[in-house]
Amino acid sequence: MRVRILGMGMGPHQLTGEAAQALRGCDYAVAARKGDGDGLLALRRAVCAAHGVPLVEVPDPARDRGAADYAAAVADWHAERTAAYERVLAERGGTAAFLVWGDPSLYDSTLRIVEAVAARGAVPVEYDVLPGIGAPQMLAARHRIVLHGVGGPVHVTPARRLPEAVAAGHRDIVVMLGGRHGFAELADWSVWWGANLGTDTEELVAGRVGDVLEEIGAARLRARERAGWVMDTALLRRPR
Amino acid sequence: MRVRILGMGMGPHQLTGEAAQALRGCDYAVAARKGDGDGLLALRRAVCAAHGVPLVEVPDPARDRGAADYAAAVADWHAERTAAYERVLAERGGTAAFLVWGDPSLYDSTLRIVEAVAARGAVPVEYDVLPGIGAPQMLAARHRIVLHGVGGPVHVTPARRLPEAVAAGHRDIVVMLGGRHGFAELADWSVWWGANLGTDTEELVAGRVGDVLEEIGAARLRARERAGWVMDTALLRRPR
Repeated sequence: MRVRILGMGMGPHQLTGEAAQALRGCDYAVAARKGDGDGLLALRRAVCAAHGVPLVEVPDPARDRGAADYAAAVADWHAERTAAYERVLAERGGTAAFLVWGDPSLYDSTLRIVEAVAARGAVPVEYDVLPGIGAPQMLAARHRIVLHGVGGPVHVTPARRLPEAVAAGHRDIVVMLGGRHGFAELADWSVWWGANLGTDTEELVAGRVGDVLEEIGAARLRARERAGWVMDTALLRRPR
Repeated sequence: MRVRILGMGMGPHQLTGEAAQALRGCDYAVAARKGDGDGLLALRRAVCAAHGVPLVEVPDPARDRGAADYAAAVADWHAERTAAYERVLAERGGTAAFLVWGDPSLYDSTLRIVEAVAARGAVPVEYDVLPGIGAPQMLAARHRIVLHGVGGPVHVTPARRLPEAVAAGHRDIVVMLGGRHGFAELADWSVWWGANLGTDTEELVAGRVGDVLEEIGAARLRARERAGWVMDTALLRRPR
């Protein structure tokens, strides 16, 4: 059988022409169903409805977010998800779409799950990937900025590893996954922040970190209250 | 007047729904016309033709690529481009699309040019940005990889600054703009490389750097010969 991993950006309007065409050629799409009021699942439903493809919802196993061994906890979670998707694919066969929020290459586990299903060998799977708009470029578009200085690098990191990136001397740091850990120590840096980018609960804040940190906190709460979920991304730029 | 900066990814098939809709609402699109057999201009022509929008070609000033002061040379070049675009916008008014190859947030000067036109004030310009598929995510999709380790960062850098990124100890480094400078010193690293991604002259190579460096060189030449231009991107991963 065939699996197509399709980046869907931040919703139906951001699907590329090639991803939309690929989706229409699939027999069904699969998506994780998380516990409470899953706004991302609703967006996947909208994408599938728009292209006439049925959506198979796969209950998502619980993840131990408090675990001391982060990598091991993620590995366990992936193993359970892998088994759940394997069952669906074995039962239905054909061509399945996995709709990935944002882009499959950044902080998304879909590719690892599909690789794991293929490696187990119980279901013979061929798969390919089509890219989607990711959160960093969506953030940049909304703030109308480039992510780096002229000829310079940009460092992309999960929030939990921000202190390392600061210590390494980077000028431009994109922070994903996990709010504002470590922002308070960077009062003189510039920040361009966004939550729920590209959706109708989007929030944007920009300025000197020390001046806008409270505003970001309030905007983050507002996004979470309105959408039932919040995902935020920021570019931090070191002062000259 | 209004300017819409539209990321077009790697060609007509990668335009998002929102970017296609925005383009159709524009009176015309503008694009730089470079000297010799400009393959990227041909793709922009195809995008405009597909959406029924006329393309205004703006001759691109020459750029001093050998200049010792890289930032100053780029600044001069931007100033000349700014003046050229300003003339076109002043003459035509209305709503203009700037079609950006890839995504406007990474190693593209369009946003700086439009900002400069707006700042000069001779043409009153309002502008917005819609994102497009960028080369790093296209590379990742083609090789079916994620750009970073579980919970880890990824560093994106122009090739000329690769040695700094290696010295800083990064594990995952995306190299843009400028071939394989510095790859030879990283024989034991893994590389996922691509040229002219998403076009019909695409080339892909992956493996241990020391084993595939010659193959990459040959593939790069082949892409350039077939397309008349070559743009390549790579992910380098440090050995364990």
